Amino acid sequence: MIKERIEKLRKLLKERNIDAFYITGSDAHQSEYVAPRWRGREYLTGFSGSSGSVVITQKRAALFTDSRYFIQAAREIEKHGVILMKSGTSDPDPVEYIKREAGEKANVAVDASEISISEFRAMQKALSPLTLTAAEDILSLIWTDRYPVPFSPVVMLSDDITGEKSSDKIERVRDEIKKKGAAWTFISSLDDIAWLTNLRASDIPHNPVFYAYMLITEKEAILYTDINRFECLDNLPFSVKPYEEAISDIENHIAGTGYINDKRVSMSFSFLEKYSLIVGRDVTTDMKAQKNEREMEGMRKAHLDDAVSYVNFLSRLEREGAGDEIAVSDMLEREREKREDYLESSFSPISAFASNGAMCHYSASEESNRKITRGLLVLDTGGQYKGGTTDITRTLLFGEATEEEKRDYTLVLKGHLALSRQKFIKGTTGCQLDVLAHQFLWNEGMSYFHGTGHGVGCRLNVHEGPMNISTRLVDVPLLPKMVISDEPGLYKENRHGIRIENLIAVKEDMNTEFGTFYSFEVLTLVPYEKRLIDMSLLTEIETAQIDMYHERVRKALMPYVEKDAVKYLEKATSPLKEK
Amino acid sequence: MIKERIEKLRKLLKERNIDAFYITGSDAHQSEYVAPRWRGREYLTGFSGSSGSVVITQKRAALFTDSRYFIQAAREIEKHGVILMKSGTSDPDPVEYIKREAGEKANVAVDASEISISEFRAMQKALSPLTLTAAEDILSLIWTDRYPVPFSPVVMLSDDITGEKSSDKIERVRDEIKKKGAAWTFISSLDDIAWLTNLRASDIPHNPVFYAYMLITEKEAILYTDINRFECLDNLPFSVKPYEEAISDIENHIAGTGYINDKRVSMSFSFLEKYSLIVGRDVTTDMKAQKNEREMEGMRKAHLDDAVSYVNFLSRLEREGAGDEIAVSDMLEREREKREDYLESSFSPISAFASNGAMCHYSASEESNRKITRGLLVLDTGGQYKGGTTDITRTLLFGEATEEEKRDYTLVLKGHLALSRQKFIKGTTGCQLDVLAHQFLWNEGMSYFHGTGHGVGCRLNVHEGPMNISTRLVDVPLLPKMVISDEPGLYKENRHGIRIENLIAVKEDMNTEFGTFYSFEVLTLVPYEKRLIDMSLLTEIETAQIDMYHERVRKALMPYVEKDAVKYLEKATSPLKEK
Repeated sequence: MIKERIEKLRKLLKERNIDAFYITGSDAHQSEYVAPRWRGREYLTGFSGSSGSVVITQKRAALFTDSRYFIQAAREIEKHGVILMKSGTSDPDPVEYIKREAGEKANVAVDASEISISEFRAMQKALSPLTLTAAEDILSLIWTDRYPVPFSPVVMLSDDITGEKSSDKIERVRDEIKKKGAAWTFISSLDDIAWLTNLRASDIPHNPVFYAYMLITEKEAILYTDINRFECLDNLPFSVKPYEEAISDIENHIAGTGYINDKRVSMSFSFLEKYSLIVGRDVTTDMKAQKNEREMEGMRKAHLDDAVSYVNFLSRLEREGAGDEIAVSDMLEREREKREDYLESSFSPISAFASNGAMCHYSASEESNRKITRGLLVLDTGGQYKGGTTDITRTLLFGEATEEEKRDYTLVLKGHLALSRQKFIKGTTGCQLDVLAHQFLWNEGMSYFHGTGHGVGCRLNVHEGPMNISTRLVDVPLLPKMVISDEPGLYKENRHGIRIENLIAVKEDMNTEFGTFYSFEVLTLVPYEKRLIDMSLLTEIETAQIDMYHERVRKALMPYVEKDAVKYLEKATSPLKEK
Repeated sequence: MIKERIEKLRKLLKERNIDAFYITGSDAHQSEYVAPRWRGREYLTGFSGSSGSVVITQKRAALFTDSRYFIQAAREIEKHGVILMKSGTSDPDPVEYIKREAGEKANVAVDASEISISEFRAMQKALSPLTLTAAEDILSLIWTDRYPVPFSPVVMLSDDITGEKSSDKIERVRDEIKKKGAAWTFISSLDDIAWLTNLRASDIPHNPVFYAYMLITEKEAILYTDINRFECLDNLPFSVKPYEEAISDIENHIAGTGYINDKRVSMSFSFLEKYSLIVGRDVTTDMKAQKNEREMEGMRKAHLDDAVSYVNFLSRLEREGAGDEIAVSDMLEREREKREDYLESSFSPISAFASNGAMCHYSASEESNRKITRGLLVLDTGGQYKGGTTDITRTLLFGEATEEEKRDYTLVLKGHLALSRQKFIKGTTGCQLDVLAHQFLWNEGMSYFHGTGHGVGCRLNVHEGPMNISTRLVDVPLLPKMVISDEPGLYKENRHGIRIENLIAVKEDMNTEFGTFYSFEVLTLVPYEKRLIDMSLLTEIETAQIDMYHERVRKALMPYVEKDAVKYLEKATSPLKEK
């Protein structure tokens, strides 16, 4: 099947004099998660992972993916004759590979709709003297039963939930781009558009966004998406035109300098490059990151609901036990589904027991699903609620903990606590605070290699920018009402994994003669695993911080947890040192 | 006098059709500290501070300087009719000022030798559509008794001190630039040249560098400096040509791609821009920053000498008292002068009592010199020794401390200690570690606004790059044998200042399954002020860290301090909690 597909594609490439075809694996909006239509990578190689690119030449088909997927990719692609190029090893990257494989005069092509202007221009430069062409959608010519662009119905969120009318947001966008010297902006990023329009849909699982483009000029606001998504088009503060018409229609509406995010706008819109352009991240990305008070209330309510479900789940787990990884995450999902405001999970849950937990992007499959015996379980899950989004990781203990497990858990917890209790002066970025989460592990010669914190949307994507907390130097200050995760971890190969994650929100703390200071409000309300805490490693401040948090959790949840969970909650939140 | 000078200059500008003349205040090598020849700023405005630029038009003369100097500048320049433009306020910067002042068609000029290529190109762009010209040295035409370029005698350091022959360093430079794709490099930075040649001189007070340029090609190495500095030219691994000939001679020796630091090479060498150029910081800057083992030994020995002097001084101060700020720093200087290897101070000492200490760049003058009564004294000093360079700040207490002083000192000390005891994974930058020094102050709504740490040369400049520890995001990892300061502070206007500074060196600590980890070796060996420590604010780890440091100090210094200082040293280094 896959071999046939590749041969069909090769024929089309030959006809078009294309020596190498590059498939980015992205959708037309550079989304982190894509609708099935854009699973061309899987269609051509059999690889079902969520990250990677493909290069097809007349002789070879190669998949490029990272260490998370080396084993899975090899298993899935080799039977189809596709070769694996391991990113981050001595294997060539796509550019090096194409140069080596396709010869010095090769014509290279990529589907214009699947590559951002920024990536295309960088690749063009790197491939030189080879030519890179932004081509038509060749894949669809062979993929005859390709999924269409999904156009699920949209719902308009009430002002109660969004806290700001779409018309007001559009006016703010106009002000922002004007300040930057631009007369219009074209937005391709789906969660930016969802935020701006106050619309939500279900085109992509877990991410309540919808495929669309948005054009805002001084006078007009046009949403390009399927018109049939709407029950009613009245009273919208923007006009709606068909998705496919964006390319041909935009130029009827723009004049003067434009503002675009060339990392998100695809090469299908490269005609915009003939205008004077200011390039930067979408202004909506910064606006969206700082929640308003109504959104903060929605986030707090979502976290309360989520915590009630979580404690009910923990209590049930203790009473009833759970057979395997999938059974555990299913049990939690069932508890979440009991909340009135719960919509769906905010991402595919990670439930990873014992050594599976040491693979920090492990996802349990029917095959890998592991029985729960003695050991640690990393449980990273989250929910979409009517008014907000949650993302929480707890490391659960089954049976008795080893000294090593307790020590590791406590060191991760100390970093998690240090970050969330730190106050910081206005202007501070996430990369400046990151060491607070790493410090105790580093002192013991240990570390983790994922980010410490990512931004989280409000009833939107569980990953959003522009800020983060990471060792990468990202120059974006943390500002009030930004919601971000605090999730240090530790992964010991073939032994165990640990991760502890709360969502925290930046808040104003104090103004002094030295300036304005911010601190974090902890949104997540679920107890830590006290049986995994090595008290001898805690300072008095840390002990007090845990006890205060647990007291807050107990008071917040007690009125709402089910009767059977009351005793569990009392025990789980009692002081570390019983007086 | 100054008015006359400005009038003379204006006449010359008019003849040359120059509407605005910009004086950067830099020397021809963009040195932090300059020889008197380059004090054109002071010659034309009367301002004696160490930082600022000047714009002269037919109508006005304006000085641009930062908040450290607002009061001093106003006092010094206003009597000469020069106006003050306060940097970092709503006042215009030089570019805005020139645009406003000199009209839309103005010709702007700057002495080519005093502006870097990088700064010139940026300013040219910012001034557009005005024209900016890199002009001849017009100032020297009116400044007839201007100081010459200083050419003090050079000394060649022995291999014992440098640990690496100049010829080997030159070979390493050739390797480095070859890796970057360049065939030659032209170096203008004075401390880079001193390091590369293993030569030292005294052209600039405190900084043992000498005015020179260095050209390294695949076959040649040419030092452009005064030939008469040398007692003997035999056996040098480079040829020596006159300083003035650099401009005309270089092109006889270069071909192909060059490597330059356009932030340090002046516009006098703008002819280099016609070559293919790779631009970056001088490769010597990175090489110099990582000391070799011999240099580390020299640094350790210098710090031992410095600490012996310091403790002798502290003991004398306790016995004899000191009348005023200058008397205190003089007393310390006299103790340093007793060490055989001591050469000179490594910068102009800061001795700032009580509220003077709250001005973090205060320098005591005859006028400001303050009597020592009760309170805190910030004493920031350092020495040049035969084999190394020191930089130390201690905050001394006279009389009894207030609760506020103790709390402030302890919070600063906690940050200072946290930074120096942190281990960190390879690849970590200074800006990632900075929060460790700020964290306790920020939690109390306090902060300081200078860098936490700067690189320090070995028998070289007390400030050197490329790494630092600061809230600015500088993407330079800390590497083994880099020497850097650890100097958090706190400045309360009209009350007191506090700063605690040690030099620390990066060292390899451990290799684990998670990677390579580094830690810091503390070089400075002088007790903290125990009477300023609020024990209730210290954790057990901090108490142990202080006690261990003091024990190390006592053991290291006891054999060397003078008899009268033995008791002082014992008392100053005894454990915080006497058992």
